This record gives sequence, C-alpha cells and structure tokens, in this order.
Amino acid sequence: MEEIAAGPLLSTIEYPSDLQKLDKLQLQQVCNELRQFIIDCVSVNGGHFGASLGVVELTVALHYVLRAPYDKLVWDVGHQAYGHKILTGRRKVFHTNRKFKGISGFPNIGESEYDAFGVGHSSTSISAALGMAIASKLKGETDRRHVAVIGDGAMTAGLPFEALNHAGVANANILVILNDNNMSIDANVGALKEYLTDITTSKTYNKLRDDFWHLLGKLPAANFQRSMASKIEASLKGVVSKASNLFEALGFRYFGPVDGHNVVKLADQLKDIVDLPGPKLLHIKTVKGKGYDLAEKDQTLWHAPGLFDKVTGQINTKVFNTPQPPKYQDVFGKTIIELAEQNPKIMGITPAMPSGCSLKYMMAEMPDRALDVGIAEQHAVTVSAGLATQGMKVFCNIYSSFMQRAYDMVVHDVAIQDLPVIFCLDRAGVVGDDGATHHGAYDVAYMRCIPNMIVSSPMNESELRNLMYTAQLDENTHPFVIRYPRGQGVLPEWQTPMEKITVGTGRKIKDGSEMAIITLGHCGNFAVEACKELTTLGIDAAHYDLRFVKPLDEAMLHEIGKRFSKIITVEDGCIRGGMGSAVLEFFNEHNYKPSVTILGIPDEIVEHGKPEELHHLCGYDKEAIVAAAKNFSSVVAETVSIGV
Amino acid sequence: MEEIAAGPLLSTIEYPSDLQKLDKLQLQQVCNELRQFIIDCVSVNGGHFGASLGVVELTVALHYVLRAPYDKLVWDVGHQAYGHKILTGRRKVFHTNRKFKGISGFPNIGESEYDAFGVGHSSTSISAALGMAIASKLKGETDRRHVAVIGDGAMTAGLPFEALNHAGVANANILVILNDNNMSIDANVGALKEYLTDITTSKTYNKLRDDFWHLLGKLPAANFQRSMASKIEASLKGVVSKASNLFEALGFRYFGPVDGHNVVKLADQLKDIVDLPGPKLLHIKTVKGKGYDLAEKDQTLWHAPGLFDKVTGQINTKVFNTPQPPKYQDVFGKTIIELAEQNPKIMGITPAMPSGCSLKYMMAEMPDRALDVGIAEQHAVTVSAGLATQGMKVFCNIYSSFMQRAYDMVVHDVAIQDLPVIFCLDRAGVVGDDGATHHGAYDVAYMRCIPNMIVSSPMNESELRNLMYTAQLDENTHPFVIRYPRGQGVLPEWQTPMEKITVGTGRKIKDGSEMAIITLGHCGNFAVEACKELTTLGIDAAHYDLRFVKPLDEAMLHEIGKRFSKIITVEDGCIRGGMGSAVLEFFNEHNYKPSVTILGIPDEIVEHGKPEELHHLCGYDKEAIVAAAKNFSSVVAETVSIGV
Repeated sequence: MEEIAAGPLLSTIEYPSDLQKLDKLQLQQVCNELRQFIIDCVSVNGGHFGASLGVVELTVALHYVLRAPYDKLVWDVGHQAYGHKILTGRRKVFHTNRKFKGISGFPNIGESEYDAFGVGHSSTSISAALGMAIASKLKGETDRRHVAVIGDGAMTAGLPFEALNHAGVANANILVILNDNNMSIDANVGALKEYLTDITTSKTYNKLRDDFWHLLGKLPAANFQRSMASKIEASLKGVVSKASNLFEALGFRYFGPVDGHNVVKLADQLKDIVDLPGPKLLHIKTVKGKGYDLAEKDQTLWHAPGLFDKVTGQINTKVFNTPQPPKYQDVFGKTIIELAEQNPKIMGITPAMPSGCSLKYMMAEMPDRALDVGIAEQHAVTVSAGLATQGMKVFCNIYSSFMQRAYDMVVHDVAIQDLPVIFCLDRAGVVGDDGATHHGAYDVAYMRCIPNMIVSSPMNESELRNLMYTAQLDENTHPFVIRYPRGQGVLPEWQTPMEKITVGTGRKIKDGSEMAIITLGHCGNFAVEACKELTTLGIDAAHYDLRFVKPLDEAMLHEIGKRFSKIITVEDGCIRGGMGSAVLEFFNEHNYKPSVTILGIPDEIVEHGKPEELHHLCGYDKEAIVAAAKNFSSVVAETVSIGV
Repeated sequence: MEEIAAGPLLSTIEYPSDLQKLDKLQLQQVCNELRQFIIDCVSVNGGHFGASLGVVELTVALHYVLRAPYDKLVWDVGHQAYGHKILTGRRKVFHTNRKFKGISGFPNIGESEYDAFGVGHSSTSISAALGMAIASKLKGETDRRHVAVIGDGAMTAGLPFEALNHAGVANANILVILNDNNMSIDANVGALKEYLTDITTSKTYNKLRDDFWHLLGKLPAANFQRSMASKIEASLKGVVSKASNLFEALGFRYFGPVDGHNVVKLADQLKDIVDLPGPKLLHIKTVKGKGYDLAEKDQTLWHAPGLFDKVTGQINTKVFNTPQPPKYQDVFGKTIIELAEQNPKIMGITPAMPSGCSLKYMMAEMPDRALDVGIAEQHAVTVSAGLATQGMKVFCNIYSSFMQRAYDMVVHDVAIQDLPVIFCLDRAGVVGDDGATHHGAYDVAYMRCIPNMIVSSPMNESELRNLMYTAQLDENTHPFVIRYPRGQGVLPEWQTPMEKITVGTGRKIKDGSEMAIITLGHCGNFAVEACKELTTLGIDAAHYDLRFVKPLDEAMLHEIGKRFSKIITVEDGCIRGGMGSAVLEFFNEHNYKPSVTILGIPDEIVEHGKPEELHHLCGYDKEAIVAAAKNFSSVVAETVSIGV
C-alpha cells in the first residue's frame, strides 16, 4: 500500500478551507484531478467506484459552499463519499481505504469530524440530517446548514418517506439533494424512478426551470427572507406544480432537475437555495461512473469492480490452474432456477440486490417469477408473505445485515402466521471490506428467538442446495431461514444431485473421544482443518455440523451431552444469544454440565478487513479452534462427564 | 359473556352471501344495525371502538360488492375489522372478542378464511394484498380482486410507500382504499395529512370529481376494457392531476375523495372501479367513531375506551378506597417532564403513541421538545440518532413489538455509532387483549446481542425513575434500553426522589440459602410473592433483581454462582435467547455448573387474554415460580455447588 500522487491543484487541498480559497473557475480542475485520483486509487486498491465518480462535481460544489464540519453533511449510502473523504483531510491515507486497520469505506463519525453520520446501509440520511436540524433549531444555531445527499435508489425505501413526511412539517432547515442517476447497485426500479424520469424529460418544465434560476439570479445575494421565499414560490407554483408535486405534496420546496456535472453552476445553485428557510429538495441529474467511459456504460459491473488496469479498463480476474469452488451466491442463483423449473410455485424476491445475490440469472430467465422490488426490505418480506398465503414458495433473498430492516415483517407477517416463506440470508457472518455496518452478525440471535422459525446454515455448496430443495417441499410448512456467507464455498464440483434433509438434523463429520466441536455453517470447514492439526497433536476431537440452530438436533446433542464434557462451538455470528447459547440452553434443559468454549463474533463492533483477517481477529478461524482445543486438553485435566 | 342480540336485518346475515341477496336500499339499515351491534358489544365487553364505527358503511359496501373469500380483502391495522368479522360468520361469537380463548381482536388467518391476512401492526396491507395480486396474476386468476383498506395514519409509515412504489409498476390488480379520517390512535401528523386535507377541501376539485362520477355513470355497467379505462383517465388527467399527483406519480389511478358514509353510493363507486385493470386508489373520507356522538368528538379517548354505559356514555372507571399504583406509562410521561425541566438537552420522541406511552403530557408542556413523528418507527430511531450526534438526550419511546420495525436503525444508526439514545420500550412482555402481534416478547433477545447496548428493566416505578435519571446523565455514553410492561406498577407513592443506579448492577431483594431466584423487571414482584409462600413451605430461596441484562452484574452473578446450585430465572420475555440464556452464558464462561430453570415466554406464539391469564399460561407467574422451586427442592436432592 503506497500513497497515491495527486494532481497539482488537488495536492494543495487538505481541507475544505483550502478549496474555498480557490476561484470558482478553478473548480473544474479540482474535479478533474479528484476524479483521476479516485481512478488511480480504486484501480490498484479496490473499493466502490461508480458512485463516487458520479458525485465528484457535487462533492466539490458542496464543500465550496458549505462550512463543514460546522455545517452538517450526510452522505446516504456512504460509498459515494470517497471524494468527500479525500477533500476532508484523508487524501494521504486514502490508499488504506477499506484495508484492515485503514480508513473505512463509508463515512464514520469516529474517523473524522467531517463525517457527520455513519452511513453504510442506504436511506438513513434525511432522518439523520433532520435530527441534526431540529437540534440546531432548539439550540438557536440558526446559521447552521444541514444537507442530506440521497440517491434515487435509496429513495425507494420507506425510511426516507417517513423522514420527508416529518420534515415537511418540522419547519427545520434541511436541504435534501436527490442525486438521480437511475441506479441502485443494479438499475433502479419502481414507480418513483419512472416519475423522476418524467420530470427530467419534460420540455415545458425544463424551460420554466431555467426561468426560475434566472429570476433567482436577479434577487439580492444575501439571505432570503421568508417573505421573499414565499414570493418566489408563488411565482413558480403554477409552473412547477405538475413536475414537483410529489415532493411539494410533502411540504418540500422542490428545485431542479439540474445538471449535476456542471460544478460552477451547481455551486451557484447551492448557494442560491441553501439558506432558504425550511425543507428544500434539489434534484440533480448525474451519471454513475461519470468520466470513466466503461463505468458509464456498465454501471452495475463498475459499482465495485475490484482491481483493474485504469488505462485499458481490463478488470483483474485471477487465473487458476484447477477448478475453483463457486460463490455461494451463484450456487443460490443457479439452484433456484433448477428448482423453479420443477416447481411452478417457486418465486424469487430481492430488494435491490439481483447482482449481489445472483437472482439476476432467474430474473433473466423467468422475469415473471423473479422480482427486484427496489431498496425495500420491509416490502420484500411482506409481499413474500402475501404470496405465501396463496401457496407460492418464495425465496426471499436479503443480506443478513439488511434483514435487520424487515425484522418486524418476519415476526408479524411471516412467523406469527407460520407462512412457509424461505429467507436466504446472504452475507451472513463477517463480510470483509464493507465492515461494521454490513457484517451479518446478529441473525442467528434475532431469528432463533422467533417461534415457528426454522434456522439453518449450510457448510458447503451441496448443503446449500439440499437446504433450498428441502425448504421448497410442500411438506415444509414453516418459515425457513438459510444463512450463508459472502464468497466462495469449498466444492468445485458443486452441482450435486439435490436431496431432502430432515429438518432439525445435523451431521457427524468426524468422530472423536476427547472433546466435541460443534459448528454451524461454512466455518465448519475451519473445524475440519483444525481437526487435522489436532490429530497430529494427538488430540482426538469429534466434529459435528449442527446445520440447524432451530430446531436443534436433539438426538445428536444428547449424544454429545452424554459423551463429552469438553465442547467447543464455532459460528460466524455473535456469541451473545447465538448458536453456542442455544446449545447451552439445550444442555441446561437436559441437565448436562459440560464446559463449553463458545467461539464466534465477540460482543463488540467489528471493523473492516479481509474475512480471514476478521475470522482471526474474532477468534473463530482454524488457529482459534486449535488453541481452544489445546486449552481444554491441558487446562482441564479431569474429564468427568456429569450427564443425566 | 353472553351473546349479544342483533337487529332484525343483521340477524339474517351470517355470511356476505346473505348480505348480497339484499336490495341496495336495505344496506343503510344493515349499517345502522351493525353500528348498534358494535356499540352493544364493545360497551359491555371492551375492545377497539372508533375505528370500526368509522368503516361500517365501507365494510357493508365492500362485502356487498366483493366475493370474499375468493376476493382478497386485507384490513390494515385490523382493529377496524369488527364489522367485517360480524358479517363473516362470527356475529354469534363476537362477544368473546379479545377474551382468553375467544376470537382475536384482529383479523387472523387461522380464525377465518375471510381474514386474508393477519394485521395487528399497521401499514402492511398494501404489500400483503399486492403479494396476493401477483400470485393471482401468475396463476391466471384474472377475475380475483385484491383490496387493501388502509388509514391515513398507517400511510405515514415507510412500508406502504415501498409497496406503492412496487405496485405502480407491477401491473397487478389491486385496489387500495385510503380511509382518511385524519387520525391514528392520536391525531395523525405530518405533511401527508396536510396534503390529504388540501385535496379534500379543494372546491374546484370537488366539482370535477362529481363530473367524473357522472361520466362513469353513463358508461356500460359491465367490465371496463383497458381502452375504456384509458379514455376515462385521459378525460380526467387535466382536472385531477393537481390533487392526485402524489399517488399518480407512483403509478396509481386515483379516485376520490368520496363520502365514506354513504353506503349506497359507496357500493356503486366500488363496483365502478374495482375491475379497472392495474393499481387503483380510492380515497374516502370518514369520521372515526361515526354514529356515536361522544366518540366522534373525542376520538383518541374513544379509540379503545374500555367498558362504558352506551346510553350515557359514561366510561367505567374503577373506584378504589386506597391509593393505587400508577401505570408505568404515566410514570414515564411525568418523570420525563421532571427530568427535562432540569436538563435542557432532553427530548422525547414517539411514533404515533403519545397517549399510549403518555408522552402527551410533555408534548403539551414542552411542544418543541416532545415530538410525535407519526407511525414511523424507523424514522423515530434515526432522527433520535441524528439528535444524539448534536448532544441531545433523546428518550425515544416505542412499544417493544413496534421496535421490531426499527431494528436496523438501532443497530446501524445508534449502536454501531455508540450514540447515547435512550429507548423506552413500553409494553414489554405480554400485553394482554391485543394478543400475539403486540406481545413484547423478543426485545431482550434481539437487543442483548447488539454491542454497546445497555439493556435494563425496572421492577417498579421507583426503579423506572432511577433508570431514566441514570440514562440521561452525561456520564452515560451508550445506547440505553429501559423495558417495562403495560399497566400498573406496585407503588402508590411512586414519585420518589431519583437516584443514580450504577449501570450493570442488580439488587438482592431477599437472601436465602437453598436456591436463588433471578428476575428481570416487573415480574420480580411475582417472585416476591412466591418467596413469601415458599417461606411458609419451608423453602429458603434468595431473590435477586438482575435489573440489567446487559451489562450483567458480574459480582452478583459470581455470588450466586458460588453459593447456589439451583437457580430459577424469571422474565416476561422469550426463553430462547433471553435473560435466562444470558445468565447461562455467564455461568458457562465462569465455569459454574448450577441447574437453572428458566421461566418466561415459551417458544410459541402466545394468543390474547388478560396479562395474568397469560403469565399463568406461559408459566412465569407466582404459582409457576413456587412450582419450580418445589420441584428443585424435592427432585434435586443433592445440592453440591460446583463453582470455580
């Protein structure tokens, strides 16, 4: 990791105050150099790409006009904030972005006072900025500005609507910038997107908009009084109402749409409106990936392309001499098609992650039966429940950490009604570079406490297929969670014939005599490796793959309880309330009293890094399992089993 | 409980098919008798009142036009569905409404095929109905209708917006009826409400609306073809666009507003539009409590008034000779004012429950510092987080089961950033008559797995005040959960001086020698009673009030672990992953091996009934504690403590 060289003008900018010393006409050069810097960095270090390129001009214009950190700037889904980070004191460490112990890929209030709010998940910015604005109002800090930058994709979630509904009557100073690029990670979907496109392509409206800016230009540049603002509004009411009504209906002053890539004009426009009293929305049009041709053309691929040759645009793909295991994502994406070809009741639902979870394959082959509902996890779950009432077998695929957004829908709409919706929780466990906001740490704890739920996790690709097959059978009448991690499994020959698994049964992977290792999911493979090493050390450990954390395999756990007094549990989930805890509950209920070492994600916020770095940090990789076993073997000398 | 007599016409109606045999001109009489029946029932049996009175005409019109259960009818927040239940086979058991083992106060798919979806929490209906509509489309059932009835209060949540955004492009047959009465349980708030009022009061619009219905009347009564619908739309486009744009922007055909109390006209209007293809929204205006004068005038009081004299309107209030303990709700509502008078940084936030949680007192006294943000739990939490970044001390009061809706915001916006937001989880534990959807069963499990969280529960009013006092001190820098049940505490003299509690410390309520009882929260009082009885039985149990389930009182638990091999834990929350589970984790970590009996809400869906009936059913009331203790005392003869 080496510091990346910046262009001559960008090199002079450490903080926004340096930017603000420049002449307006120098801003475009800053943009050019900032864009180049991002390309230089991401091409060799990886990270998110298209989103930050798309807001280069907005970023420069905002920091030219605002007085951060006094003014509060909240970036929705912070992966668009690279330019912001580079202009706010972090250019020289930007090459550590998303690296273990480096800076975060998202704004982070612990990292910089310029990061007003931590934003990894989307759609939170308006609520957060509104909270700040209400606080300023109460404290009498009337000159403080509060800006939320939110994409049209993020706007499809319910939370921004709740925030707009409140902001429209809260009479607080807030400027929402709607960064409209027609995209989530995948193409944005839904009625709102079509509405925004309608606005943008309206010729009548565009002319009137220009008249408006002209009018604004004639007014004194100083703070607008409320009366002045009202006059402007009155003069515009008739002409913009059709286009802007959705936001005006919610009490916002609507401005736009304007070109988000004209930095000078954008800075002027921001200056014009940022001090108007009350809630305002500026609609800007941008191109995701702007300034890097290939990224403009294939915006999903270039959302986070990995490493690439910035000159040729060739994305680095590792070449292997031997067949590699597939990603769990692709196993899901291809298996659901196999199943759906056999079972006409199967549907797939994803909230805006068709590429990430690989439902895109089914969407291409069976467009009526695989739906992207937008960034709308709550709706994804409840619409799945509605489908299930009519006998459909829905695979609702949501990342583990995003499922936190639909928790009540899981409880209220699915579990209480005992509807057999299948939840595929992708990216369960630590996710790697995305860090704290994206780790799927809590799902076992928050799912296993819900009645009627089946909660499972496959140890490999073949098991994932078998669990998917089992979940869609008519004989399964309960909600069914299948959690699996981001990334590769272990079986290059993954397309095994699918077999039914009896719900609530685990597998003995290896017998042993001295202690038992119980694992859940993919980290069972760490235990397989650990057992090999333990054997060489003369420690004879049995290894059980629990497979279902709910219902538990009682026969297997009775066997373990009777035979072993030393037990190690291993999970890629939180220790508090997780699988190990479920096992303790079982042993307690049945009066077994073994010593149990619980390995998993500790009770703290885990930062970003490579998955293997984080497994090690958390203490549930192969080494940690071996260490726990050795600890048992040496420290606990006496091994009396106190079973029933 | 006795069956209530119905009027002569209503007596002939068991099912909608009976209603459909009537002449249109008889419908008003059905409405009158249905309204009277609801008044007769609720006045002597209790339950929700105003909402169902407000939709009497809509209910009759819907069941006159639809062909349920083939057609799917989803009532949002099902407490408006009494009329629906009475007309769909449940008139003769309606007097068991909300009683233990009686019918549910909400639609329930297990109770009747006419209840298309279980709806206790608000705002789910459009998603659910859309799921049904998509299923019908896939199955080729083109004649099936799908109707969601949703209030303007429920529309302020994010979920309906997510659903509208999807429905607008899903091209499925769905009719959304917006039942606009300007109310949640309390007065509805927010920009949307003002927008809806604007529509309704527009004179120009009202005239044009009448023209529209006139036009519709001239068309053939048979199914409208798509082309016909387009023509109607074109003729209306110009005239309704201003008023309807918010919904039309999202791809819905908008009709209304119309009078929701003219049953004949409403039936005609429903017939006119229900078979138009694609997504449609009919906006009706109703009066909550319609037909019962007092309920129309004080709609919040009469949302669920308890028992009352239907003639005089006198609401029954029990008279006591001795001072009674207050509700925990009022202790919260009055204590926050005391604290806010001392600490200018304190704010109160509630999502649409100001009366329920008693924040209404502070809203009246300090309107700038106590906010109702509408039915918007997600926003309530994230706006609290935004406020907290600016140093405000926010008491965010949300019912435990509703907090499930904001789980990701708790994790992502509050806990990861370690912001000291104070979450008062009202109605924790079993709530009583509202039943399965409203029990606050899971919060200990889903909160204690989150890093940085403090999770506490007061055993009485004084403890609640002390916890509130402690949470708002500057020295507390973490998110702080205080969970407490619905209803009365135990201290008539509740207004005790507030004292700081050291976070993570419990209390020994009573010493003992034979076994230890560990309780969390109000159910500690059950243990106090149990201990008295145990003493008379010669069983000497110690009783500890854990008070904090996170962080645990390690010193106290070490004491317990060292001294006792028989332990009973008692909580009004789920057993899986709950407080008892946390205690097991502690004992396991520190190598204590007691036998622990965990009492709490079992791993099943708990139905409705009086709290004391449900405490008994679940097995954590006084009797259950005594039984568990006796079981220990007789069954486990040997009592060797195997501590560290």
